Amino acid sequence: MKIDLNCDMGESFGAFRIGMDEAVMPHITSANIACGFHAGDPVVMEKTVANAKKNRIAIGAHPGYPDLMGFGRRNMVCAPEEVTAYVTYQIGALKAFAAAQGLPVQHVKPHGALYNAAQMDAPLMEAICRAVASVDASLIFVGLAGKWAERNQAIAEAFGLHMAFEAFPDRAYTPEGVLQSRKEAGSVIKDPETVAQRALRMAREGKVVATDGSELSISPDTLCVHGDTPGAVTLVSQIHQTLSENGVEVVPMGAFL
Amino acid sequence: MKIDLNCDMGESFGAFRIGMDEAVMPHITSANIACGFHAGDPVVMEKTVANAKKNRIAIGAHPGYPDLMGFGRRNMVCAPEEVTAYVTYQIGALKAFAAAQGLPVQHVKPHGALYNAAQMDAPLMEAICRAVASVDASLIFVGLAGKWAERNQAIAEAFGLHMAFEAFPDRAYTPEGVLQSRKEAGSVIKDPETVAQRALRMAREGKVVATDGSELSISPDTLCVHGDTPGAVTLVSQIHQTLSENGVEVVPMGAFL
Amino acid sequence: MKIDLNCDMGESFGAFRIGMDEAVMPHITSANIACGFHAGDPVVMEKTVANAKKNRIAIGAHPGYPDLMGFGRRNMVCAPEEVTAYVTYQIGALKAFAAAQGLPVQHVKPHGALYNAAQMDAPLMEAICRAVASVDASLIFVGLAGKWAERNQAIAEAFGLHMAFEAFPDRAYTPEGVLQSRKEAGSVIKDPETVAQRALRMAREGKVVATDGSELSISPDTLCVHGDTPGAVTLVSQIHQTLSENGVEVVPMGAFL
Amino acid sequence: MKIDLNCDMGESFGAFRIGMDEAVMPHITSANIACGFHAGDPVVMEKTVANAKKNRIAIGAHPGYPDLMGFGRRNMVCAPEEVTAYVTYQIGALKAFAAAQGLPVQHVKPHGALYNAAQMDAPLMEAICRAVASVDASLIFVGLAGKWAERNQAIAEAFGLHMAFEAFPDRAYTPEGVLQSRKEAGSVIKDPETVAQRALRMAREGKVVATDGSELSISPDTLCVHGDTPGAVTLVSQIHQTLSENGVEVVPMGAFL
Repeated sequence: MKIDLNCDMGESFGAFRIGMDEAVMPHITSANIACGFHAGDPVVMEKTVANAKKNRIAIGAHPGYPDLMGFGRRNMVCAPEEVTAYVTYQIGALKAFAAAQGLPVQHVKPHGALYNAAQMDAPLMEAICRAVASVDASLIFVGLAGKWAERNQAIAEAFGLHMAFEAFPDRAYTPEGVLQSRKEAGSVIKDPETVAQRALRMAREGKVVATDGSELSISPDTLCVHGDTPGAVTLVSQIHQTLSENGVEVVPMGAFL
Repeated sequence: MKIDLNCDMGESFGAFRIGMDEAVMPHITSANIACGFHAGDPVVMEKTVANAKKNRIAIGAHPGYPDLMGFGRRNMVCAPEEVTAYVTYQIGALKAFAAAQGLPVQHVKPHGALYNAAQMDAPLMEAICRAVASVDASLIFVGLAGKWAERNQAIAEAFGLHMAFEAFPDRAYTPEGVLQSRKEAGSVIKDPETVAQRALRMAREGKVVATDGSELSISPDTLCVHGDTPGAVTLVSQIHQTLSENGVEVVPMGAFL
Repeated sequence: MKIDLNCDMGESFGAFRIGMDEAVMPHITSANIACGFHAGDPVVMEKTVANAKKNRIAIGAHPGYPDLMGFGRRNMVCAPEEVTAYVTYQIGALKAFAAAQGLPVQHVKPHGALYNAAQMDAPLMEAICRAVASVDASLIFVGLAGKWAERNQAIAEAFGLHMAFEAFPDRAYTPEGVLQSRKEAGSVIKDPETVAQRALRMAREGKVVATDGSELSISPDTLCVHGDTPGAVTLVSQIHQTLSENGVEVVPMGAFL
Repeated sequence: MKIDLNCDMGESFGAFRIGMDEAVMPHITSANIACGFHAGDPVVMEKTVANAKKNRIAIGAHPGYPDLMGFGRRNMVCAPEEVTAYVTYQIGALKAFAAAQGLPVQHVKPHGALYNAAQMDAPLMEAICRAVASVDASLIFVGLAGKWAERNQAIAEAFGLHMAFEAFPDRAYTPEGVLQSRKEAGSVIKDPETVAQRALRMAREGKVVATDGSELSISPDTLCVHGDTPGAVTLVSQIHQTLSENGVEVVPMGAFL
C-alpha cells in the first residue's frame, strides 16, 4: 500500500514570502513548484528545486494563469491555444532548473483556477494535456479523484499521458464526489487527528465519507496537503506519521505509477 | 567560407506587434527568440518556433532583463544569482516549445542591456554562462566579436561552453573594436549596398574598417541583422544575396561551429 | 444637433506601438486613454494627454482588467471590490497627468472585457460606478446605448453619475439592440460610405437598422470609432465630415451633457 | 518641539503579505503608501488608506521603480522623462484612493533604489520633483537629512516644493553624514533603548553621533521607522513613547511644515 503526499511549494515572489517550505518539505514526497505566472520567480524556483533535492523529494511543475495579483485563483477566459502555450512555457522553465541540478521533473499539477476549471471543462483539460504531452509525455499529470476522474483520464490517455488522482484529506466532499465550496461552513477540516484519519482511510481503502454520511470511492494516488496555514507543519507531519504507522508507505507518485 | 545571419525574432507581446518576422525569416539562418521577459509571450514563442521550423532556420534563446516596459534596454543592477536564474528560466521556456515541435535549440544570445553589460562585466558574463552551461552545455553562446572577445571566450570555456562571435555590418566601429554609441551621428549605416559590402568583408576577410579608417580584425561567426526597421527585409535580403554570390555560404552557426 | 466621436488612444506600451494616434486625433472629439493595466504606460499616457491638448480634444480614462498579455479582452472573474479598486487606481493615474497639463478629465469608459461584462452584469456595473463616483462624481460615465441602457442608467444615477451612451457605426446590431458577435460574418462594416451614413442616422435620428432589417432606437450621445485598423484615418475622417456637412455638430460629450 | 514618525505601509501585493501595518499604524504619524510599482496593489492601497484614516495618521505616496520582482531595490537606468511619468502616475493613483475616502495626500517619499539614487543624482531628483510639482505643488517632498540636503532643497524649491528631511534612528551614520551601507557590520542598530535615545537626540537637538564618534547636525523633520522586521512594533512604540515623555510632540509633518 503506497501513497504520495503532494504540497504546493515555491510560492514566494521576490521579497514577498509565502509558505513554510523548509519546514514542510521533510514531511511530503512531491512538491508542486510554482513557475512564475501566479507565484514563484526564477530565484525562488532555483532555491525550491535545491530544497527538494536536499530533502530527496520529487518535483513537479505547478503552472497557473498569468495573474500574479490574483494568485492564479481567478478564472480567466483564455483560448485553448493560450493555455497550451502558458503551460508549455512554465513546464519548460521548471525543467531547466531541474536539469541544472540533475533532478527529473516527475509531474505536472495545474494551479488554482486553472486546475479547478480544467476538471470540469474538457477543452481546457485537453489544452493542458496537449502542453504536457508535447514537452514530455513521461510526466505524470495530476487531477482530481472523484466525479470527473474517468472522463479526464480518457482525455489524458488520448494524449499518451498517465494520470495521478489526488484527494484532499482536509476538505469536505459532497455526495457527488466534489469538494465542498470553501464558502460553506465546515468545508475545511482543521482538527489534525480527524484529517489524519481521513488521509489514512483514503490511502488504505480509497474511501471518504461525504457531507451526507454516504461513502465515496475515490482511490487517490496522492493526497494534497497545505503548507501555508497556521499549524501546517504539525498537520502534515501527523498525516505522514499516521500513514506510516498504519502500514501505508509514503513515497513519491513516480515510484509506483 | 561560412557565415551565419542572426536576427531577433518573436518580439511581439499579446496584441502588441513588433517586427516583420515572416518576411525576414527566409533571409536569415538563426533566430534569436525573445522569451517573455523583455518581449515575447508564450503564444508568440510557439508561433515563432513554428515559423522557424517552416523556414528551416535554427533557433536560439534571447533572454533579457525582466523589464517589459523598457524592452530590456535599461540597465538593471541585478545580483549574479538573479541573472543566472533569469537566464535559466528563459532558456528552459524556449526549450519546451522547441521540444514540442521537435526542434533543437542551437544557441543563446542575451538581449539588450543584459548583452551589452555582460560583454564588459566579467561577473555578469559568468552569471549568464553558468545558466547556459547548467541547462545544456552544448548550446552555442553568442557574444560580441572584437575588444572583449578573448576575455569572454575564456570565461565561456571555463564553463565548458563554445562561443560564437558576432559582428554588426550596419554599425560603425570605434578604433578600439567597440560599437559606436547610437547617440553619435553615423553610428547606424543605412545604405544597403554599403552594409552588404561590409558584411561581405566581415565574412570573407574577418575585417571591418573603423571610424578612423583603421582596419580591425574581428573574425565573426555570425552577423547580426535587424528585422524591425523600415527597409529591413530589403537590407537583410541584400546582405544574404551579396554573401551567397561572392562565395560565402550562409548557414546556421551550428553547422560549422 | 450634437454628437461626440470617441476613440481609444494611448494603447502603446514601451517599445510596443499600437494605433495611429497622431493621425486620428484631429478627427475625434474625445480620447479614451489606456491607463497601464491592459495597455498604455506612464510615458505613453503623458504623451497622449499632451497630444489631446494640442488637438483640443477632451480626454477620459479607459480602465481595463490587469491583463496586458490579453489586452484586457479576456474575462477575469474579479471580486467587485477588486474592480472598484482597479478602476479607482487607473482614473487617479490619468487625473495626475491631466492635472500636470492643466486639462480636466471629462469621462470614464471601461475597456474591452470589463466594458462588455459590465453592461450585462449589475454588480460589476455598480463596482465600476462606485469607483468613478468616489474619485469624482462629475466624470461622465460611458456605457452602451441600446438593450441595457435604462438599467445601467439607473445604476449610475444611484451613484450620482451622469451617463453618456455610445453607439458603434461600424458594427452590426442584432434586433435585440446588442452588438453582433465579432465571430459572425458581417459583424464589422468596412465600407466607409456605409459607416458614415449609419453614423449620420445614429446622430440625427437616434436610429440604426438591425441585422433583420428592423429599426432600433438607440439615441447615442457619442459614437465610438477605431484608430488601429487599416484605413482608420480615412474612415474616421469621413464620418466626421459626413456629420458636419449634414448639420450635426461634432463636439466633446462634455459640451452638451 | 515637534517631530513626525514615517513608516512604509501597504507593501502587500495580492495574496502576498508584507509588514504588520495594523499593529504599527497606531504608533506612527505618516504612512508612506506603496503605489503598485515595487509593491502594493489597488486593493491593498484602498485598505491602507482606510487604515490610516481609522488611525488618524497622514498619508503620502511612496513611488518606486517598476520592479515588483526586485521590490524596487535595484537600480534601473531610466530616462528622466520616464521617472517623471512613473512618479506622476503613482501619485495620481494614491490621490484617487485618498479622494475616495476624503483624505488629503500629505507627502511624497520615493522608495528604495529610486530614493537612494535620487539623493546623489541631481537630474534624477529633478525628474521626481517635476512630477510632484506638476501634480500638486502643496505636497511635501521627503528627502534625506545630511550630506545632500542643501543641494536637494535647492532643487525642490526651484520646482516650488517644500521639503521635509528625514533621519534614521536605527541606522549608523558615516562622518560624512551618509547612512552606512547595510553590508557593513553595525549599520543597523537593533537595541530598542539605543534607537529610542538616538531618535530623541535627533528630534530634540537635531544631532546624531557618527561611526567615528563625531557629532553631525542633521535637523530632521521626520524620523523613518520600519514596520516589517521582528520586534518592529515594540521598537516603534518605544521610540514614540520616549519622544512623547521627553517633551517632543509626535505629529504629522504637515502639522508643522
